[in-house]
Amino acid sequence: MFSYTAKAARRNSRGGKDAFASCGDRPNPCKRFASVGRRPREMGVAMTYCCGILVREGLVMIADTRTNAGLDNISTFRKLQLFEDPGRHVMMLASSGNLSVSQGAVNLLVEGLEDPASGRIERLEDAQTMLQAAHLVGRAVRRSLALVGDVAETGVSFDVALLFGGQIGAAPPRLFMIYTAGNAIECTPDTPYLQIGEHKYGKPILDRAITYETDIYDALKIGLISMDSTIRSNLSVGLPIDIALLRRDALKSEVATRIDASDDYFRDLRERWSKALREAHIAIPPPPYGRESK
Amino acid sequence: MFSYTAKAARRNSRGGKDAFASCGDRPNPCKRFASVGRRPREMGVAMTYCCGILVREGLVMIADTRTNAGLDNISTFRKLQLFEDPGRHVMMLASSGNLSVSQGAVNLLVEGLEDPASGRIERLEDAQTMLQAAHLVGRAVRRSLALVGDVAETGVSFDVALLFGGQIGAAPPRLFMIYTAGNAIECTPDTPYLQIGEHKYGKPILDRAITYETDIYDALKIGLISMDSTIRSNLSVGLPIDIALLRRDALKSEVATRIDASDDYFRDLRERWSKALREAHIAIPPPPYGRESK
Repeated sequence: MFSYTAKAARRNSRGGKDAFASCGDRPNPCKRFASVGRRPREMGVAMTYCCGILVREGLVMIADTRTNAGLDNISTFRKLQLFEDPGRHVMMLASSGNLSVSQGAVNLLVEGLEDPASGRIERLEDAQTMLQAAHLVGRAVRRSLALVGDVAETGVSFDVALLFGGQIGAAPPRLFMIYTAGNAIECTPDTPYLQIGEHKYGKPILDRAITYETDIYDALKIGLISMDSTIRSNLSVGLPIDIALLRRDALKSEVATRIDASDDYFRDLRERWSKALREAHIAIPPPPYGRESK
Repeated sequence: MFSYTAKAARRNSRGGKDAFASCGDRPNPCKRFASVGRRPREMGVAMTYCCGILVREGLVMIADTRTNAGLDNISTFRKLQLFEDPGRHVMMLASSGNLSVSQGAVNLLVEGLEDPASGRIERLEDAQTMLQAAHLVGRAVRRSLALVGDVAETGVSFDVALLFGGQIGAAPPRLFMIYTAGNAIECTPDTPYLQIGEHKYGKPILDRAITYETDIYDALKIGLISMDSTIRSNLSVGLPIDIALLRRDALKSEVATRIDASDDYFRDLRERWSKALREAHIAIPPPPYGRESK
């Protein structure tokens, strides 16, 4: 459902039916504020949680869908987009921060950005390498931000952070984090994951459990535990969760699905994890401090 | 060592030897910057982690000791103070945020603050109830902040957050969080813990494991696990850790000690917890997504 094929991109850029069903058919979230006198809060300025894990076997991306403009205005927006042309490339893009800027960047990546030097229109699907693609995502973020106008005057944060990963052709899968300025860092085997948004609650389990040699489905499982810890402790992160899994050299996504509150596996994972944590701390001996001296 | 007795307070307030050995005999951390042309960064503006847990059996407080003025300037400062007059009262104060403001408040609580209405000098040891004591701590924070002068002009954050708990006489133990403005919230059985500083990494285990009926040494153990998760994920929180435990109606601290890197129990706890987390996620079945459809 949230997969974005190269064919649809071409149709879309020619003005056909909007292939980006997950974004394009939603009403503008700011419209509802039109009649309100005071300045509306921007939808999607606040937190989210997305995590990308790059192991030897491939790439996993996980993103929640909660977007808010304050506690009294919570919505569901997809933050994980899949750009796939099976056999040629699979690219995944997850976003946090200002929703207008990140959605704007995604739309530019689909419709195409003009290269200022050559005048050529560049689309994500045309990138020959993941590095080229990451640079294009960075340019799309800057362009999207520029369309907003003079950011400094508004007092609203237009910052975004994106995770962008995937594989093009025979080159190995890569994973990048792209900042508002369009610059990027790349994930390496030393720390085989990157996080954006509300990352702290879910970091301890990643720090302890993930290595570059971790089985790819274990990586997905640990990512889901990390997401569960975040959802449990922070209201601004919530179900449903979008997940995607790309096995190295498959050039086709192996998992691309949405997990909601009714999902049996995720419910079972949450219960088992809670139970295991309780048992784990019970198994640790009580602290020796103080008692001996009584 | 960091216990502060009522007798010492009276000696101190009469100008005798400074009983507050843990704070009073340290050189002013800003002196070393005196010859530097550019504006020194304030010591202790950044993060710390302190946690107070109030269970039916009593009160536990845990605080790290790392204080920094940037990554290149890290020091050890005590952030957990114990005010104890065995048989009469035990009060514990943990602080995060600007060190000059929180240390200033502690010093005022020891030397005494003048009540603007009555002109009387009020000291923490004279409080008749924990609520009165918490109000006095709030006034000490405001007074300490006022001594700094015009905060807005400096561009430095003078915010602090304090945890203040204990028992006076026969009334039950209470635990408060006190903000820079001197206002406070109180811990209740619904959520029997309060945190200040870098609280996110260590929150998931508290959320899952602590209830008001938890055994007090289990509460200490879970607090240490929470501290371990924080230390592991955030450089600005570090060993040694100060811990204190007050059993209800004992009117004498049962534990008041410092845990450093050589502490056998804490090292064992960290290893067991890491191992248990690894085993816990291994015991969860692999995610079913994607595989069936292949």
